[in-house]
Amino acid sequence: MSYRLAELAEKIGGEVQGAPDRRIDGIRGLETAGPGDLSFVANPRYRKIAIASRAGALLVSPSSVDLGHDLLVVADPYFALAELLDIFYPQSPQVVGVHSTASVGEGAVIDPSASIGPYSVIGERCRLGADVVIHPHVVVGRDCEIGAATVLFPGVVIYDGVEIGDRCRLHSGVVLGSDGFGYAQHEGTHVKLNHVGCVVVEDDVEIGANTTVDRALLDETRIGAGSKVDNLVQIGHNVGMGRGCLLVSQSGISGSTRLGDGVVIAGQSGLSGHLKLGDGVQVAAKSAVFKSVEAGKKVAGIPATDASSWLRQQAMVARLVDWGRRIANLERTAESGDKGREP
Amino acid sequence: MSYRLAELAEKIGGEVQGAPDRRIDGIRGLETAGPGDLSFVANPRYRKIAIASRAGALLVSPSSVDLGHDLLVVADPYFALAELLDIFYPQSPQVVGVHSTASVGEGAVIDPSASIGPYSVIGERCRLGADVVIHPHVVVGRDCEIGAATVLFPGVVIYDGVEIGDRCRLHSGVVLGSDGFGYAQHEGTHVKLNHVGCVVVEDDVEIGANTTVDRALLDETRIGAGSKVDNLVQIGHNVGMGRGCLLVSQSGISGSTRLGDGVVIAGQSGLSGHLKLGDGVQVAAKSAVFKSVEAGKKVAGIPATDASSWLRQQAMVARLVDWGRRIANLERTAESGDKGREP
Amino acid sequence: MSYRLAELAEKIGGEVQGAPDRRIDGIRGLETAGPGDLSFVANPRYRKIAIASRAGALLVSPSSVDLGHDLLVVADPYFALAELLDIFYPQSPQVVGVHSTASVGEGAVIDPSASIGPYSVIGERCRLGADVVIHPHVVVGRDCEIGAATVLFPGVVIYDGVEIGDRCRLHSGVVLGSDGFGYAQHEGTHVKLNHVGCVVVEDDVEIGANTTVDRALLDETRIGAGSKVDNLVQIGHNVGMGRGCLLVSQSGISGSTRLGDGVVIAGQSGLSGHLKLGDGVQVAAKSAVFKSVEAGKKVAGIPATDASSWLRQQAMVARLVDWGRRIANLERTAESGDKGREP
Repeated sequence: MSYRLAELAEKIGGEVQGAPDRRIDGIRGLETAGPGDLSFVANPRYRKIAIASRAGALLVSPSSVDLGHDLLVVADPYFALAELLDIFYPQSPQVVGVHSTASVGEGAVIDPSASIGPYSVIGERCRLGADVVIHPHVVVGRDCEIGAATVLFPGVVIYDGVEIGDRCRLHSGVVLGSDGFGYAQHEGTHVKLNHVGCVVVEDDVEIGANTTVDRALLDETRIGAGSKVDNLVQIGHNVGMGRGCLLVSQSGISGSTRLGDGVVIAGQSGLSGHLKLGDGVQVAAKSAVFKSVEAGKKVAGIPATDASSWLRQQAMVARLVDWGRRIANLERTAESGDKGREP
Repeated sequence: MSYRLAELAEKIGGEVQGAPDRRIDGIRGLETAGPGDLSFVANPRYRKIAIASRAGALLVSPSSVDLGHDLLVVADPYFALAELLDIFYPQSPQVVGVHSTASVGEGAVIDPSASIGPYSVIGERCRLGADVVIHPHVVVGRDCEIGAATVLFPGVVIYDGVEIGDRCRLHSGVVLGSDGFGYAQHEGTHVKLNHVGCVVVEDDVEIGANTTVDRALLDETRIGAGSKVDNLVQIGHNVGMGRGCLLVSQSGISGSTRLGDGVVIAGQSGLSGHLKLGDGVQVAAKSAVFKSVEAGKKVAGIPATDASSWLRQQAMVARLVDWGRRIANLERTAESGDKGREP
Repeated sequence: MSYRLAELAEKIGGEVQGAPDRRIDGIRGLETAGPGDLSFVANPRYRKIAIASRAGALLVSPSSVDLGHDLLVVADPYFALAELLDIFYPQSPQVVGVHSTASVGEGAVIDPSASIGPYSVIGERCRLGADVVIHPHVVVGRDCEIGAATVLFPGVVIYDGVEIGDRCRLHSGVVLGSDGFGYAQHEGTHVKLNHVGCVVVEDDVEIGANTTVDRALLDETRIGAGSKVDNLVQIGHNVGMGRGCLLVSQSGISGSTRLGDGVVIAGQSGLSGHLKLGDGVQVAAKSAVFKSVEAGKKVAGIPATDASSWLRQQAMVARLVDWGRRIANLERTAESGDKGREP
């Protein structure tokens, strides 16, 4: 595919500064782009690299000037990039139908537009919507529901009774519906609680590779619409998540904790169980949240506290060696002062 | 299934307060239960929700009073819940036998009561006990032993020579027996140490989704009987675990570390290599243990220290901004005092 | 296999102290070795166990004396152990050829010496080199390249367009090429950025079980030659790694961060995005790196700082309870001093 810069500007509502007829064949990073490529500058720290880039044109915000290239100027370069990637690199169509080696259980209802790849196993009484794509080596348990245009990549495992909405993407190694970690202590042993709840994934959710979501003990574990979950994340039994949450890689949410809408949990952070995080809460990377957090707050640290307090505290910790000296000095002064005052 | 409250009381050794003839059809959470459901109150923080619940009856401890429902009173509601879940939701029976698409290696001995699902691959000379359930898409290497009534969920991978006891449950994505992370530094490269040891999982162990257990360099990596391991946990080569340990999600144990019986490692904690943790040690969430810990101790922090000391230290860190001011004040006072004393 | 101690000494360039004719049948750990076994002492902390060992002979460095066994003395016992393990436990040969149940896409070119196990799926136009071993239940996408003698263990998933070098080992559950975690915020929703870059794994890389490596947004995510990655590690989109890096279990590298050669990231550490870590940087366990690090530095802590400073700071934190008392004492002294000076 190849477009004139002016054509692209029209498609995404931008403005050309420079040669409108320059031909663009693809999109590359600043350091690898050549004269036929568009590249982008979404972060001012890459300004020098942008100037040195061999890219034919740059996708920039109105604040980026003097970059020495033909420019495609848009209000939001990162969002425009999302649009342009869809234009240049449309998803390749899947072979429709059930592969001859796939196994479909009795009573399952598969939309004729769905695609089911080699060796995949679909359980009894499952319902798969239009344009669902099941890659090879996916296992779906009994009585599951998978909404329209949802994609399950190779090696995904869905246990019995899980509901997945429309337009979701579950990457390889995702496990939905495994038993939660719940045992009753009894006479010195850990007695298993049979987990009979389910997992519900609402529409437009993406879940990264090797992430695990446990089924509820009773009731449900729920991931809200439009939420995005990174790789290797743990979501415990009976967790409830609102809409549009972001869970970054290797974070974990313990059982029965509830997130509001738009909550962001940064990488390698953890939340203990039975908490409530209000709408828009942000948890900094590598934090451990042991208490509920009110809507709109940013928290950080182990244990997590107000994020700006935590930053100040850490700055203080970095000065402790100096403080130790100052306290010792004060003690020496006080002692000699006392002596000075002695008769 | 449906039971009278009095019947349930008899089955689990409890006592009814209220209507013994109330019919119970299922078990639900406090917020979703209806008049035909039993719900439970194991945590006093849910008292208000319990009072407001539409549940037909509540499973409670003797200390729960005035909840305004028919009650099923037991000494330990959480353990009673485990018993009731088994009564209401018995495991559905598996199809016995080897699925036509499963592949079983030469010399493997499969008990006739075992179930092996579609596309699973069982290596040469494996021995599978009575009532073993191998779900679809499981791969078991050569010379493995799997004890009676053990269940392997879809996508489990067992490398060669692994021994698994009776009544274990290994969830999807579990990998047992991958090579440990061991290299010899030699002339600027990392030379691989061929790992020739094995993994032994004793009886009654449950392992969560996508958890990994490395094989020993020599000898064995061992998970003690009755231990429960959550999702996404890492157990390194040559680790030894006693009986009844609990490893919570995303925790990790480095090579050659030994745990006694009943050790609890909370979520996202890590242990460095070659340590010994005595019986009953508890490691708080998000800790990093760099030294051995004596039996019965609770530790927390990075680096981990006595848990109550760590709590006090963190309380102090939260006051450091204030302390900085106090030290500066003292210095001003001392300076002006010195000046005052000058002749 | 069985060797005389003198034969082994000759093979690995060591020296026998004791009986050169002692027969060695295998290699075991100190506590399990018997009279026919060689064991090893690479760490002085195991000296006592070595003396008590029933091993027939010990592999030691010249500094180990008076251990009371026949000795095989070498400059570097750990490297010698690597050599001896290859001698005693050679890899068992794989069945060459494509298993009848494996699925190979159109246009794929498979070297006749390669082995492809049951149910594996190789995408269209893939190229697999000599002696490649694809275990059962591996899925390789379209247009991938896999170099000579590379081994993919059961359950590995490779997305489209990934390049893997020679002599790599990818353990079970590894996912290469899943989409990076990149969304543009637009009108209150997270708009997906279609990831069109690739993953390149250079020669002699080993990747541990259930580790995930995301494909680049544009361009590539690259793992440098000879690097070793442990289990459950996350490598984000557009990460670049130099040669000979070590990433220990449960560590994570966020998008676009670049590592030089020989960088070591210890267990459960995390790096935020868009950083540069110079050659030979070492990150201590459980650290969170938020800033770029110059070559040769060792860092630790959350946020990560110079490792020796961090150790001093943590020692100070452990004294804070005492400091609190000392500050309060100083304040009392100052107050009484002020009073003393009052007229």
